[in-house]
Amino acid sequence: MSSKLILLRHGESEWNLANRFTGWVDVDLSPKGREEAEWAGKELAKEGFKFDIAFTSVLKRAIRTLWYTLSETDQMWVPVYRAWQLNERHYGGLQGLNKSETAKKYGEDQVKVWRRSYSTPPPPLDDNDPSHPRFDRRYRHLDPVILPSTESLSITLDRVMPYWANEIVPHLRQGKTVLIAAHGNSLRALVKHLNQISDDDIVGLNIPTGIPRVYELDDELGIISDRYLGGEEKAKAAAAAVAAQANA
Amino acid sequence: MSSKLILLRHGESEWNLANRFTGWVDVDLSPKGREEAEWAGKELAKEGFKFDIAFTSVLKRAIRTLWYTLSETDQMWVPVYRAWQLNERHYGGLQGLNKSETAKKYGEDQVKVWRRSYSTPPPPLDDNDPSHPRFDRRYRHLDPVILPSTESLSITLDRVMPYWANEIVPHLRQGKTVLIAAHGNSLRALVKHLNQISDDDIVGLNIPTGIPRVYELDDELGIISDRYLGGEEKAKAAAAAVAAQANA
Repeated sequence: MSSKLILLRHGESEWNLANRFTGWVDVDLSPKGREEAEWAGKELAKEGFKFDIAFTSVLKRAIRTLWYTLSETDQMWVPVYRAWQLNERHYGGLQGLNKSETAKKYGEDQVKVWRRSYSTPPPPLDDNDPSHPRFDRRYRHLDPVILPSTESLSITLDRVMPYWANEIVPHLRQGKTVLIAAHGNSLRALVKHLNQISDDDIVGLNIPTGIPRVYELDDELGIISDRYLGGEEKAKAAAAAVAAQANA
Repeated sequence: MSSKLILLRHGESEWNLANRFTGWVDVDLSPKGREEAEWAGKELAKEGFKFDIAFTSVLKRAIRTLWYTLSETDQMWVPVYRAWQLNERHYGGLQGLNKSETAKKYGEDQVKVWRRSYSTPPPPLDDNDPSHPRFDRRYRHLDPVILPSTESLSITLDRVMPYWANEIVPHLRQGKTVLIAAHGNSLRALVKHLNQISDDDIVGLNIPTGIPRVYELDDELGIISDRYLGGEEKAKAAAAAVAAQANA
């Protein structure tokens, strides 16, 4: 029994535009981001995908992207699970800072390490910072000790993967079609696992925004096929644009 | 420990405009219906409601209404449960028919009975009708024997109330703030129960579209207060408009 998994990174956010570190800050899609999400929905509709269940983060740029896809595919009734474990990587004390200002403050090389290293997290957010997740109502049911003050990609993986294994995989094992609308780094965690990418290589892999990645998986969750909708060329160009933005 | 319950009937749908019996047909909001939903969201935001959980049906006019309220109140992260039990009353063989045509075909008096009687359902949908819920993917996990071919208000209550008691009440008993975006008749079931309205009186009670009804409930789910947002005058006028449409 094969299953289908569709990964979708949210479209451009208002802070992509402003070139600021976002992380867990709950920034909405930009008008262009909404268009990207709508396009993704129309592509999924064109290919006739029939979802059984959908997962997203508790951040509105991913949720709104999901809403566009459910609306465009006429499947608004599909059950949706929102999980903090699918949030973007927490960017610690850098959240809210402009990327070029940060480079001036800490130096280009240091910022590159935070952005590109697999296991070095940025400086943590102060525990008493009002923007710390422990003051945010959406996380109030959680034990505060598990709420991050900063995350490396490695730490991000450590909370994405148990959620994947416990909450998402059971549906795939039943042959369902699962849609996940999430973020660059939470999706990197899944792609790293599914495509067996090394720690070194994953940091160089850029997931394009607003382009659904479709996996067909076998019984053992091995990849039968794996492609981007709308053609590989478009996906490559979009991934290159993401990479270029990171270097700006 | 008191709790809050907000009931919201979806805004105008495309078939309200066309004056057709809708029931379980999955018709979207009209542009005016979207404006109503947006207004409801803004009113809820103005009063600072903080939701803990939201419920809706599996029909997009209710889901989209909910989406507007979550977006306008900046609470898109709130967990949402979609339940067929909160669907509109199934209108049987009348679904899709124009209301005045139906009156000509069956006679005004008969149609009035179907619309206004508490326990007389309209003629059932044929079991082999392609629009029967048993052919609809969103109900495929259910035992087909519980899927209605038609419903009276009484039958509607019989599936709303167990869902209320088992799935919604536990959250209210914990003092949570619960939002339900649903339909004229599934909400009538809840109002009938909460406000202890008789079988005879409930059929004459019209719930206005797009106006949040806010209950404050005590430990025993008794009503502490009960009001429409935006003022009773507006709610009365909107309910009268709904009643007038039904008589047209």
